[in-house]
Amino acid sequence: MHNIDNNKSPIGVFDSGIGGITVVKSIIDRLPQENIIYFGDLARLPYGTKSVRTIQKFAEQTVQFLIKKQVKAIVIACNTISAVAKEQINLLAGKIPVVDVISSGAESGKTGHKIGIIATPATINSNAYPLAIIQLNPNVQIFSQACTLFVPLIEEGFIKHQALKLIAHEYLQALKNKNIDTLILGCTHYPLIKDTITHIIGKKVKLIDPADSTCDKLIQVLTKKKLFNKSKKTPNYQFFVTEITPAFKVIGEQFLQTRINNLELVNLD
Amino acid sequence: MHNIDNNKSPIGVFDSGIGGITVVKSIIDRLPQENIIYFGDLARLPYGTKSVRTIQKFAEQTVQFLIKKQVKAIVIACNTISAVAKEQINLLAGKIPVVDVISSGAESGKTGHKIGIIATPATINSNAYPLAIIQLNPNVQIFSQACTLFVPLIEEGFIKHQALKLIAHEYLQALKNKNIDTLILGCTHYPLIKDTITHIIGKKVKLIDPADSTCDKLIQVLTKKKLFNKSKKTPNYQFFVTEITPAFKVIGEQFLQTRINNLELVNLD
Repeated sequence: MHNIDNNKSPIGVFDSGIGGITVVKSIIDRLPQENIIYFGDLARLPYGTKSVRTIQKFAEQTVQFLIKKQVKAIVIACNTISAVAKEQINLLAGKIPVVDVISSGAESGKTGHKIGIIATPATINSNAYPLAIIQLNPNVQIFSQACTLFVPLIEEGFIKHQALKLIAHEYLQALKNKNIDTLILGCTHYPLIKDTITHIIGKKVKLIDPADSTCDKLIQVLTKKKLFNKSKKTPNYQFFVTEITPAFKVIGEQFLQTRINNLELVNLD
Repeated sequence: MHNIDNNKSPIGVFDSGIGGITVVKSIIDRLPQENIIYFGDLARLPYGTKSVRTIQKFAEQTVQFLIKKQVKAIVIACNTISAVAKEQINLLAGKIPVVDVISSGAESGKTGHKIGIIATPATINSNAYPLAIIQLNPNVQIFSQACTLFVPLIEEGFIKHQALKLIAHEYLQALKNKNIDTLILGCTHYPLIKDTITHIIGKKVKLIDPADSTCDKLIQVLTKKKLFNKSKKTPNYQFFVTEITPAFKVIGEQFLQTRINNLELVNLD
């Protein structure tokens, strides 16, 4: 049977695509002794424009895969999945602790008064960030903006391009007009264009990167459950994808700031 | 058993998403008496960045669905699928005639001397347009350019936006420098931004829209097989999708220039 007391077991991190690798990067920086399994459902991405029912089905298949890999904790490194499938995942995971980007990001963002949220359409439409924040602090004003084109622009390498600035301006102007004091980057790709976002929204606005917040939460959970890996061995990082695309290694290594050596194709269908 | 002699049977048109509706529009304009079934695999799009093996599997599932619907002809209204799965589809379709956008577009484009092709990465990487054109006319020079961001920009409504112009400039400059005389719009979405493309590439370059070419080819096939529908009844247009997204109706109706009334969800998994 599955044994979650095994401290050497990996932490399972998953996303619809490649963005969750920014969360892996945070975990490696702060918990350099932990083994990590990353799962990216590249064959079926993007989740951001799919229905709740479809996203839940895909997420359940992924969690079943991670459970078979005997992970000791599960990190939902995808805002869309966190928004619409967290309860199903908790149920499936049983005693395995589950941490997600939305609860964690909301925790970091709750100190704001006028809070902006930018994300994919599915995350925005789910209303998950506002709901999570208001539970923690009912005295806030929240303004949401879907930024559909940011992910394809980032993945196509237009990170510093004038076209990205123009599109970012379109998306962010309404939030700027509301005089927000805090902006949650509700998609794992967005930290890559932090400079452009800050330039448009202004330096006084506090940017929240939920990857950092998720790492805080994971450390809390591992501390509480005494699940840290105390082995001095070089940790193992395994990447599983449902589709091997040339872009995955290129962009993934850019996000990770190191090589991806251990990449394997799996089929969940 | 399947009876392809039934002239009242629908024409089956399929695509990974919504773009193929521009082909449906062409067919309706030129063959207003025909019944049409459209299939869009919205739950699993985009195909453009997926592997050949995955695209072939998805296409075969779709064609099996169309055969069950007793279509009298199959139109592959997706460049990516035409590029990588045409032979598998022909095999599966048996006696049902199959028409595709790439062979048809190549037929129209073959009169050029310096031919540019713009499309999704999968279509470009497949090399399918150059191969099809060179078989018809070996004395041509061909230049290809993947335009990954055009589809998301068009679907997000940035059709007239300065950001689209800047991105189009990035993509098209190399083709312009080659002094092409013909440009094949190798993705069903691209006719929607024909004005921007013409503005950058120059009015002297002949633009080929494979949706029109496909319609020519379909008319040839129906003529040869005596398969035209002679009924005077108002034709029936049915739309089947693997995912119902709000955007499908909005963008689809924009492409179709009329209402989509008959929309049904199907599951191929």
